[in-house]
Amino acid sequence: MPTKPSTKLWGGRFNSEITTETEDFTQSIEVDSRMVAHDIWGSQAHAIMLARVGIISDEDLRQILRWLGKAEEDFRDGKFFLKPEKEDVHMNVESYLIEGAGREYGGKLHTARSRNDQVLVDAHLVTREQILRTQEGTSRLCRVFLAIARCHVETVMPGYTHTQHAQPISLGFWATAYVSMFIRDLKRLDAAYALANMNPLGACALAGTSFPIDRHLTTKLLGFDAVHEHALDVISSRDFIAETLFALSMLMSNLSRLGEEIVYWTTYEFGMAVLDDTYAFGSSIMPQKKNPDIAELTRGRCGRVYSALLDLLTNLKGLPLGYNRDLQEDKPPLWDAFDVVQSCLGVLPGLLETIDFKTDRMAELANANFATATELANYLVREGGLAFRECHEIVGGIVGDLVKMGKTFKDWEETQQLLQNRGINLAIPELQRILDPKLALHSHRSLGGTSPTEVRRMVDGFEGKLDELEAQIRTRQDGIQAAHQRTLQIIEQVLAGTPIMEANL
Amino acid sequence: MPTKPSTKLWGGRFNSEITTETEDFTQSIEVDSRMVAHDIWGSQAHAIMLARVGIISDEDLRQILRWLGKAEEDFRDGKFFLKPEKEDVHMNVESYLIEGAGREYGGKLHTARSRNDQVLVDAHLVTREQILRTQEGTSRLCRVFLAIARCHVETVMPGYTHTQHAQPISLGFWATAYVSMFIRDLKRLDAAYALANMNPLGACALAGTSFPIDRHLTTKLLGFDAVHEHALDVISSRDFIAETLFALSMLMSNLSRLGEEIVYWTTYEFGMAVLDDTYAFGSSIMPQKKNPDIAELTRGRCGRVYSALLDLLTNLKGLPLGYNRDLQEDKPPLWDAFDVVQSCLGVLPGLLETIDFKTDRMAELANANFATATELANYLVREGGLAFRECHEIVGGIVGDLVKMGKTFKDWEETQQLLQNRGINLAIPELQRILDPKLALHSHRSLGGTSPTEVRRMVDGFEGKLDELEAQIRTRQDGIQAAHQRTLQIIEQVLAGTPIMEANL
Amino acid sequence: MPTKPSTKLWGGRFNSEITTETEDFTQSIEVDSRMVAHDIWGSQAHAIMLARVGIISDEDLRQILRWLGKAEEDFRDGKFFLKPEKEDVHMNVESYLIEGAGREYGGKLHTARSRNDQVLVDAHLVTREQILRTQEGTSRLCRVFLAIARCHVETVMPGYTHTQHAQPISLGFWATAYVSMFIRDLKRLDAAYALANMNPLGACALAGTSFPIDRHLTTKLLGFDAVHEHALDVISSRDFIAETLFALSMLMSNLSRLGEEIVYWTTYEFGMAVLDDTYAFGSSIMPQKKNPDIAELTRGRCGRVYSALLDLLTNLKGLPLGYNRDLQEDKPPLWDAFDVVQSCLGVLPGLLETIDFKTDRMAELANANFATATELANYLVREGGLAFRECHEIVGGIVGDLVKMGKTFKDWEETQQLLQNRGINLAIPELQRILDPKLALHSHRSLGGTSPTEVRRMVDGFEGKLDELEAQIRTRQDGIQAAHQRTLQIIEQVLAGTPIMEANL
Amino acid sequence: MPTKPSTKLWGGRFNSEITTETEDFTQSIEVDSRMVAHDIWGSQAHAIMLARVGIISDEDLRQILRWLGKAEEDFRDGKFFLKPEKEDVHMNVESYLIEGAGREYGGKLHTARSRNDQVLVDAHLVTREQILRTQEGTSRLCRVFLAIARCHVETVMPGYTHTQHAQPISLGFWATAYVSMFIRDLKRLDAAYALANMNPLGACALAGTSFPIDRHLTTKLLGFDAVHEHALDVISSRDFIAETLFALSMLMSNLSRLGEEIVYWTTYEFGMAVLDDTYAFGSSIMPQKKNPDIAELTRGRCGRVYSALLDLLTNLKGLPLGYNRDLQEDKPPLWDAFDVVQSCLGVLPGLLETIDFKTDRMAELANANFATATELANYLVREGGLAFRECHEIVGGIVGDLVKMGKTFKDWEETQQLLQNRGINLAIPELQRILDPKLALHSHRSLGGTSPTEVRRMVDGFEGKLDELEAQIRTRQDGIQAAHQRTLQIIEQVLAGTPIMEANL
Repeated sequence: MPTKPSTKLWGGRFNSEITTETEDFTQSIEVDSRMVAHDIWGSQAHAIMLARVGIISDEDLRQILRWLGKAEEDFRDGKFFLKPEKEDVHMNVESYLIEGAGREYGGKLHTARSRNDQVLVDAHLVTREQILRTQEGTSRLCRVFLAIARCHVETVMPGYTHTQHAQPISLGFWATAYVSMFIRDLKRLDAAYALANMNPLGACALAGTSFPIDRHLTTKLLGFDAVHEHALDVISSRDFIAETLFALSMLMSNLSRLGEEIVYWTTYEFGMAVLDDTYAFGSSIMPQKKNPDIAELTRGRCGRVYSALLDLLTNLKGLPLGYNRDLQEDKPPLWDAFDVVQSCLGVLPGLLETIDFKTDRMAELANANFATATELANYLVREGGLAFRECHEIVGGIVGDLVKMGKTFKDWEETQQLLQNRGINLAIPELQRILDPKLALHSHRSLGGTSPTEVRRMVDGFEGKLDELEAQIRTRQDGIQAAHQRTLQIIEQVLAGTPIMEANL
Repeated sequence: MPTKPSTKLWGGRFNSEITTETEDFTQSIEVDSRMVAHDIWGSQAHAIMLARVGIISDEDLRQILRWLGKAEEDFRDGKFFLKPEKEDVHMNVESYLIEGAGREYGGKLHTARSRNDQVLVDAHLVTREQILRTQEGTSRLCRVFLAIARCHVETVMPGYTHTQHAQPISLGFWATAYVSMFIRDLKRLDAAYALANMNPLGACALAGTSFPIDRHLTTKLLGFDAVHEHALDVISSRDFIAETLFALSMLMSNLSRLGEEIVYWTTYEFGMAVLDDTYAFGSSIMPQKKNPDIAELTRGRCGRVYSALLDLLTNLKGLPLGYNRDLQEDKPPLWDAFDVVQSCLGVLPGLLETIDFKTDRMAELANANFATATELANYLVREGGLAFRECHEIVGGIVGDLVKMGKTFKDWEETQQLLQNRGINLAIPELQRILDPKLALHSHRSLGGTSPTEVRRMVDGFEGKLDELEAQIRTRQDGIQAAHQRTLQIIEQVLAGTPIMEANL
Repeated sequence: MPTKPSTKLWGGRFNSEITTETEDFTQSIEVDSRMVAHDIWGSQAHAIMLARVGIISDEDLRQILRWLGKAEEDFRDGKFFLKPEKEDVHMNVESYLIEGAGREYGGKLHTARSRNDQVLVDAHLVTREQILRTQEGTSRLCRVFLAIARCHVETVMPGYTHTQHAQPISLGFWATAYVSMFIRDLKRLDAAYALANMNPLGACALAGTSFPIDRHLTTKLLGFDAVHEHALDVISSRDFIAETLFALSMLMSNLSRLGEEIVYWTTYEFGMAVLDDTYAFGSSIMPQKKNPDIAELTRGRCGRVYSALLDLLTNLKGLPLGYNRDLQEDKPPLWDAFDVVQSCLGVLPGLLETIDFKTDRMAELANANFATATELANYLVREGGLAFRECHEIVGGIVGDLVKMGKTFKDWEETQQLLQNRGINLAIPELQRILDPKLALHSHRSLGGTSPTEVRRMVDGFEGKLDELEAQIRTRQDGIQAAHQRTLQIIEQVLAGTPIMEANL
Repeated sequence: MPTKPSTKLWGGRFNSEITTETEDFTQSIEVDSRMVAHDIWGSQAHAIMLARVGIISDEDLRQILRWLGKAEEDFRDGKFFLKPEKEDVHMNVESYLIEGAGREYGGKLHTARSRNDQVLVDAHLVTREQILRTQEGTSRLCRVFLAIARCHVETVMPGYTHTQHAQPISLGFWATAYVSMFIRDLKRLDAAYALANMNPLGACALAGTSFPIDRHLTTKLLGFDAVHEHALDVISSRDFIAETLFALSMLMSNLSRLGEEIVYWTTYEFGMAVLDDTYAFGSSIMPQKKNPDIAELTRGRCGRVYSALLDLLTNLKGLPLGYNRDLQEDKPPLWDAFDVVQSCLGVLPGLLETIDFKTDRMAELANANFATATELANYLVREGGLAFRECHEIVGGIVGDLVKMGKTFKDWEETQQLLQNRGINLAIPELQRILDPKLALHSHRSLGGTSPTEVRRMVDGFEGKLDELEAQIRTRQDGIQAAHQRTLQIIEQVLAGTPIMEANL
């Protein structure tokens, strides 16, 4: 077989082409298609830097920028497609450039750069954007919970432990619990953002370069916070993705718990909430069905985000330092996890805004099954001077007796009698006061407790935190936007003929 | 807002439409697009059965079959698309049918069926096909290894433990190890196939039906081996998928180990193999690079298959019986795992057929680093009547001394001297014979050992097993094909006017 | 520092001892302590074989067997402990032997064997035992479900999909679903058993041996089904453990689902079951609590078994062939998974035997929320000749109207009127018949459906299968026992002076 | 059967005892045994607070503190054991207290507290301690790498991508890459610490309490940074553990990569390092073996830490809010992960301090296989004004030709000739300068590159960061110590008769 030399941009030393199936096996076009604009921005910044430090000429830069701009335009207009035989977004863009500008110009873009750092630039740019988007969605969901909380600081419902009635809480208290949890998710995303917003460009293949590049300049142009310095670490590590995936996993874990609660609250048996028809689903066979599919899918997709994290961790296990092609597989799980989490964050606010909480049913349940037994024990501690452990036993015994008789606390006379049998005399009105779920609710004024005063205080606090977080998200989005604008303005100047040394960087 | 009644096929009790984003969140069009033909076959079999037992009329059947056939044709021709607003493949096909045949006919297809069992039919049909395809690919890879083995039963290479030279083995012995492993993977896929090839149809929503359906008939028409009987178990369980994913995970685990070995064997340091240029890749920055990307991606995609398994297991954890929408998420990981594994199986045979094993280097390594030390100890046991533990210590001591002197066994005189110091007198030719890797290879004639006779015997055995397995794959594929043909022939008869009771089932 | 030569049995070539912390890091004493008896049996079989084929003498064998027997006795009596500084069970036993019998005898045991195959013998022996024990526990649980099923073939309860009332089923039908699931778990354990019960001994380090060993003889003495032949495959692979862990994971997944159902059925809201006080737990603070901790822990420990599987899979990813020390980590997850699963199987039968199913509540729920709507639609199909899809819409509309009016089907007149509005005239007694959950139950006579006849038939079938499976378990346990006895009898003969060639093997 | 009332402290409403196997199934004694001292400290702080706010009397407090102190002492002296029938550490300590002080005193400790918040106190206290210990170990490992780096800023070795020679780097550059990675691990542990060091006490069962507790006081006494306020969030969430497990997983992932590199560097083929005998292992059968078991186990235990994370995530999936017994399973994976990571951190510093890097071999490899090809291309860019892409192709072609001829760059005349064929004239000394690995190393002066100046600068920077981190660890450890001392001083005052209102808090 006569050897046909490789036509790849990297094919100098190769005598033959790879096979089509090999091409298919290794290409990353679908995954890369999310990064075209980011890849081009990265290249623009790199080219500007190369010219500014004198590695390429003004004319080189002009040609490169002209054709990069055109590539982006053509991609947007659907005229420039990523081709699998060009392997990845980088080679596709460079090919477009070389075809347009000729190799004497286009062939200069890849000076002092490797795909190893280039792909990281793209992944960092997409990741930071998606983190901010996820934070926005999470914050929006928090706002819905806070609105629910404000309305329901006095709405009594049973608080559960072991899915058994424990103590009365308010619906508002329940709603703020999720906010309290999500705020930590937002902070974890913050920490991941800090890692994502570091500049990998300039690490080159793994060792930096002998060209006098200026990594601070590309950092500025791409809106990164700082340089991720150590070149070998840059190329070898993917913890910015792993940490993002962990933050998404915890968030999704919390969403799955909400899903479970919605599923059960909307059962006939619990009857604590009814979904709006716009957020419920029927059955193809059972005409009466009204199903909580969104809640179920939220719960059911949790594994997908967990497994995205596991996928990357498995990948990294035992990998030697330096770039290994295994690392190409870092993006599919990340993209998928962002999609899953963001789609959940997209539908849940509407579902919660339209859900009909059945507060009467909640009150009924809170009153039905000894949920205030602790309060009776506490009363005996306070008023009777008995040890809590003894009061616990007394009240436990009374509950046991009532259950055997098929009665509840609301069978006041029996309850009174059972207390009397144990040497405790309480008038029925007093008993009713002690065992009233609403009064119990109000009395739980300890820091972070379920009392309306505490819940209101916490709602205020959470709103303040969300204000801050949202301001931070906007600041960051604006910063990214501004950096992109700055790059575009420089390009405009250059294309208009301004020498790069005179351009306003 | 005036309520607009639901237009869903299940929408009878609903007062309003779900929102578009909710539709997007819940639809499964992309995933379902692999199952259109299978869904139609399932419906054809169901309709034939309904008519045969008298639930629908001959005319009903004719109309249904006519339009189902047209749906498949239109889908193939790109004229019938799955629409997200119709949720899934089932509702899309039923809508097509009702539009074509009218509700008085098309509306009868879903009698005595639910999407709950219908989607399982589709998933079972796809899974069994893909399992067979995966087995074919695995068997093909085994054949390549066996071809390598036949050529290299006498090719000496170092066998490694702890990635250190352990004892000489043959390249053929190494190659057959993978075959021995893959044959167990093939058997695991077999067990998964047995689960997949059970008929879920007729489980209906979760409880069976009061219609007098004939599940044995649909079993026959769809080419299933048997009925999966218990309706609630059918609807609740996904172990046929989990077991498939586990079988794929083990297979992928074995492939990742092959990937690792190819990566290291093709390093400059090991130098035991060189990839053909058609299966190697260059670098965008380093002109000299020739990288084993396929091996790396095979290793790196292992986590994707593992995580597909984890995804499903997480999903199933703590799920109450009956259908839950969470279960819709069973297919994305399965499709993805099949794709990943099959693509690896697609490229690895070619890579191995063209790889250039450097047998001289292997021989050199096998001879360089004391790999035959055990043989010397064994010799002392056999000839000297010493306890193995003592011989081990003697030879260990000699190796230690040689290493300190910067020598190896091949410094015959030093070796002889060190033996003599320990009271053992051996002529150099004898020593050379004992320590010769090739002779050591030949001597390992224990059952399953590395000797050429054993490897040849095992190659024969593996070929026999692969012959059987491949015959079985073909038998199964033929059986599926035959069942499909039988269904089509019945359809032809029915459309030609034969009453179903007279049709040849 | 003057070098102090290694005192390890393998220390011939080493000039110094490893540090204590290194010893601690690498030793596996705790994990190995489960395998002492198995290790000794393995060594006894190996020694007998060595003597029978003439590798060691009758006197060697006698000495070895005498001290191995004593080691086991001393271990049982707490006089022989595994010491961490001897690394593992193998080196501890060999040291005991050498100390007792002297190196001239004891030092011969390890001829033609490596720790690589020896540890596999131990792991295989323990695994097969534990699989059988797990199968016993699973079968016991199935029997409890079958007893429940027999009592409750006519006990109506709501069948759930999406955790919403779907169609009436019987409690017996529900109970048999688990049996149907567990029987597949038993089969998966069977497949794992088949892998575990293969003999790895004789693979030696990785290449077999030049000694004329007889692997069939050790297979027979150790009660294995067959030889696992390919030495390199034997040493490199751990799929017998992975497959066991997957079988345990699926089983645990099923148990976690049972756990979830118990948690919810015993809520105040569902009220479908009450735990016996012997299987329920109180709260340290809330005197009224009665919590389903066992069900929760069963659900909560699911992740532990999943993660045991993941642990091993992660370990195997990208591992080159041959023994790698990573593989020592195969046993901790396996032991842990067996413990978790077996402890669940230990408590759940008692919990289910004593649980109080609230059949009145079940009947009430089955009747309360339109669970028979499908039956009304089916009736209209059968009697009205309408298409199912149309009937579905009609009944769906009626349910929607009733819900809006705050009514149910049992508001017969309203239901009748709503049907009439849609042109369907039904007398109330007829309506009551159609919508009666008990009658609906009886009518679901399709294969595998919820009708009493089907459930009874399935119970019979499952009992037959369990009889077979339990017989198989006993046969296997007897076989293992018999093999051990055979080994002990040979030992007795040898110690009594019978030459091994005359011993009755 | 006559009912025997429950003897549990929570047994008031129970008529019978749980069974022994149920007790075994649910108890957590082994896991809890790590938390006895922490549990007692938590109870001491709680009791002091109860008295200070007037919920219990000075005499109550004295009695409680006396017996808690004695419990700790007896535990330390091995006189007080945790008994499984008392379920957990909390009930064991409370029983001890009640037995000693009588229920009239001891029974008051559990006022305004639940085991739900109590167990979280213990877990938080242990977790923060263990995080600090893990950070210490990580920092120690970093110091070893920095010492290596300082010695080897000019030691040339091949830098690898795709495990193929890429470009020359220095051994010091390689060593600092790990430090750069570990410093992010340290920060992740920091973030986990911040979560762990929040006070859960006072959340009570799930809703706070009606007693006027002072959560700020217990925060101070227990040395927490702040109150974790929202009671329901406190009780429901375990992200402080999940985040810790993720931080440990990433750290372990990085260690596994180091393990892989040590395994391969110490192969005969790479020969870049030799382990000291104190950190290497032999074989039971092959006398010549010297195995890198520590590196292998470090790699092989990675899955154990990953799976600990997965275990908890699986547990949390779909769990309703409030305490569920599933959450008891949060600690076994955490303890195990800490043990595994810390043991790795215990042995690796010594292994690296004693490893013998073979710098000659490294230099040889860096020079053998075209690792400086990029430098030649860069030279052509700089001097020839050619586009990088063109230079890449030229050099690639030359490498391809040399490989075919069996030559390397060091065949200077051939290299010169091949350049000349492509129109480039270079004197051999110039060529030697360009292709010299050491000079290449020095030229990579870009920020974060491999040049000695950059590596020295980074070493300085890392040392500064480690100084800070270690100072922070010590500050935190001192703070914890100081808080404990403060608690003990208060106890001393109280036991000496000081009324709590006069005690110096």
